[in-house]
Amino acid sequence: MRIVDIITKKRDGGELSRAEIELFIRGYVAGEVPDYQAAAFCMAVFFRGMTPQETTHLTEAMAFSGDTLDLHDVAAFIVDKHSSGGVGDKTTLVVGPMVASLGVPVGKMSGRGLSFSGGTLDKLEAIPGYRVDLTIAQFKRQLREVGVVVAGQTHELAPADGKLYALRDVTGTVDSLPLIAGSIMSKKIAAGADAIVLDVKVGKGAFMETLPEAVELAELMAQIGRGLGRKMTALIGDMSQPLGLAAGNALEVAEAIETLHGRGPADFRQHCVDVAAEMLLIARVHVPGTSEVPGTFEAESAHTQAAATLDNGTAWAKFRQWIAAQGGDLAVVDDPGRLAHAPIIEPLLAPRDGYVAKVDAREVGFTVVDLGGGRAVKGDPVDPAVGVVLEERGKIGGKVAAGEPLLWVHARTDVACAAALARLAAAYAFSDAPVAAPPVIHRVIR
Amino acid sequence: MRIVDIITKKRDGGELSRAEIELFIRGYVAGEVPDYQAAAFCMAVFFRGMTPQETTHLTEAMAFSGDTLDLHDVAAFIVDKHSSGGVGDKTTLVVGPMVASLGVPVGKMSGRGLSFSGGTLDKLEAIPGYRVDLTIAQFKRQLREVGVVVAGQTHELAPADGKLYALRDVTGTVDSLPLIAGSIMSKKIAAGADAIVLDVKVGKGAFMETLPEAVELAELMAQIGRGLGRKMTALIGDMSQPLGLAAGNALEVAEAIETLHGRGPADFRQHCVDVAAEMLLIARVHVPGTSEVPGTFEAESAHTQAAATLDNGTAWAKFRQWIAAQGGDLAVVDDPGRLAHAPIIEPLLAPRDGYVAKVDAREVGFTVVDLGGGRAVKGDPVDPAVGVVLEERGKIGGKVAAGEPLLWVHARTDVACAAALARLAAAYAFSDAPVAAPPVIHRVIR
Repeated sequence: MRIVDIITKKRDGGELSRAEIELFIRGYVAGEVPDYQAAAFCMAVFFRGMTPQETTHLTEAMAFSGDTLDLHDVAAFIVDKHSSGGVGDKTTLVVGPMVASLGVPVGKMSGRGLSFSGGTLDKLEAIPGYRVDLTIAQFKRQLREVGVVVAGQTHELAPADGKLYALRDVTGTVDSLPLIAGSIMSKKIAAGADAIVLDVKVGKGAFMETLPEAVELAELMAQIGRGLGRKMTALIGDMSQPLGLAAGNALEVAEAIETLHGRGPADFRQHCVDVAAEMLLIARVHVPGTSEVPGTFEAESAHTQAAATLDNGTAWAKFRQWIAAQGGDLAVVDDPGRLAHAPIIEPLLAPRDGYVAKVDAREVGFTVVDLGGGRAVKGDPVDPAVGVVLEERGKIGGKVAAGEPLLWVHARTDVACAAALARLAAAYAFSDAPVAAPPVIHRVIR
Repeated sequence: MRIVDIITKKRDGGELSRAEIELFIRGYVAGEVPDYQAAAFCMAVFFRGMTPQETTHLTEAMAFSGDTLDLHDVAAFIVDKHSSGGVGDKTTLVVGPMVASLGVPVGKMSGRGLSFSGGTLDKLEAIPGYRVDLTIAQFKRQLREVGVVVAGQTHELAPADGKLYALRDVTGTVDSLPLIAGSIMSKKIAAGADAIVLDVKVGKGAFMETLPEAVELAELMAQIGRGLGRKMTALIGDMSQPLGLAAGNALEVAEAIETLHGRGPADFRQHCVDVAAEMLLIARVHVPGTSEVPGTFEAESAHTQAAATLDNGTAWAKFRQWIAAQGGDLAVVDDPGRLAHAPIIEPLLAPRDGYVAKVDAREVGFTVVDLGGGRAVKGDPVDPAVGVVLEERGKIGGKVAAGEPLLWVHARTDVACAAALARLAAAYAFSDAPVAAPPVIHRVIR
């Protein structure tokens, strides 16, 4: 079997075998299959798709294309959580300590922001001293001792995926459902998760803009995970507007801290409680007896207990332990006013009376990039201080009067601030009639 | 405009502009556009196709991607002929001297055989001493003094095509009509033709297996040529069975010589007369007064005069002049018994009474490759002596009795001979009822 025959078979709509997919991926990682054949293959997959079975084979081949992480010497059952990204998505900062405080360990390898979507590592680095580069030994020790650790990738997990993703980025083959699903799932499988809670976002500020697309991706990833012996739950979270009120690294850390204190925006709090509850449920349901969570463990109870960690200070205490373990300055998290802040803060005023009908999350995300708080291309530095903070009234469904602030721009310069205000003004739409706020979670697929 | 945007535009079904196609091709030849982007582009073209306008832009960009040949200092009007290849296609050896003997100069850059299809240079090299490597100065001098010259490519004409073709070969993107048409036409345009007669083959022994496919390719190439200011005629020649009786380099030279003496297989003679007539017509119609051909010049007259060159010895005389000018041994062409010949010659016998219904030309072509007379991969040496010679009764429509020879295998070893006979036996089908021979030329598109 030659590689060109595998390409041609996919080009002509054939279903590839496990052996064919493995041959291709192994050869690609070994440098025996050149980039140009991989590019032709990806474009053929773009047009022909892959069956769930093929996508599972692809995921497995990529997951085991390099080192894999085994955390079972530290925890009996590893629950991971994956968000498909978005604007204002600081969920990991809150959910990690929530579930860890209930005895479910969270060891996450996270990523950086790119394009309109932020990244967890960038947010954590807004806390002075926080180290994202840990050795495997450090990672495991913290996971055992603290129960929560969030770092960058230490090993080169799923190198096939890294190599293939870089290629897809420059060959117009990013937007392929099986390639997207395989990319995400291969990293999760390589990182050693026994169960995965997928937090798939839908809307203008997400990679999937419509509910059917998001559900299709979520169901495909769940099918792949189950096919590889993992327990899977997927939530479809709303990303038509930013999650919570803050977008921008230090601003989001401050909002996460507010939420960990039992305050914070209602939609973000609900999102965190729902995600945490699914992580608790999947951990408890599938390893009965191993969790330290007391009581019966049904959905309602999981939500109640998850919410309680925000209100009774246990999540906050776990957060402090975590941040301190990774070198973060506790004086700053205890007093978020000491986080980096921008010199210029200006409001966007409502141009008319009415109800907010639209806040384009993607435009808000790009505005943060324009302000210097995100990356247009990999490797760009980020300014932690800048960003956007919405007023509650400035979110969808909010009732506003002309001249009231919709949001506040935190900028480094006047020029950048003016440009941001102009871009954000165009991201809004208003209605005379009342508008319903979108649901925080559109669907849960267990 | 980034290259990935051009790829994505084509991927999504957009029509590329001349500027976009030029940017892509120029960048590719300059090494600025990497192979992996070109591979993704070709696969996107495979699925989305190209409009005739886009294909014309592609052809032009490739044709002018390197040196081009200008023969107008030697001849006022250059007619070229292109065959899409096939089995037993020794047409150039006969048609070249035919039209040159009537004053229409023929200066051709030809290629070598690959896969089941033979190549003119391999055939000519079966004549001891024949040189295919000429300088441009030698090429032009011979074109002026003899009127016919057939050599390998001296300049690197259309380097974009050479580079892209090699890439398509290993990325499953050969079978794309616009890429095939652009590849052929770019070389013809770069070689300086004012008019081109396309000899597009159809059937099992051709790249286009059905008449609609062949007509589509022919019409697209004609449209491209006209779009770039060239005069175009296309013939659709039959390749369901081998052309003539001989397949194999020295065997085909012998058959060409027979035909130049006014003998030879009827179908091959007719094919040569038809192609030559179209070359005469296109030369005369478009440069009245410059041709030395006497008399009025309509289609019937062209056929009559072309045929006459075979019967009155003028084509043969021109052939000898040509071969001598390129160093070929006239003693051999004057006595074809002195061409290389194989030690083993065995017949394939008809297994039953009946009429020949099928002689799979592709299988005959692959048998010649198996015997050592063709190439599985570029650069393989070829054995000029081996091949297959059909009996007249062994072609489609032939009436055979069980035990009569259908053809003769010319082999280097007994093992190769036995394998060839087995493969050829499976290439035949028979019928109880009479079978009509296929037309030699299915269609002429002027």
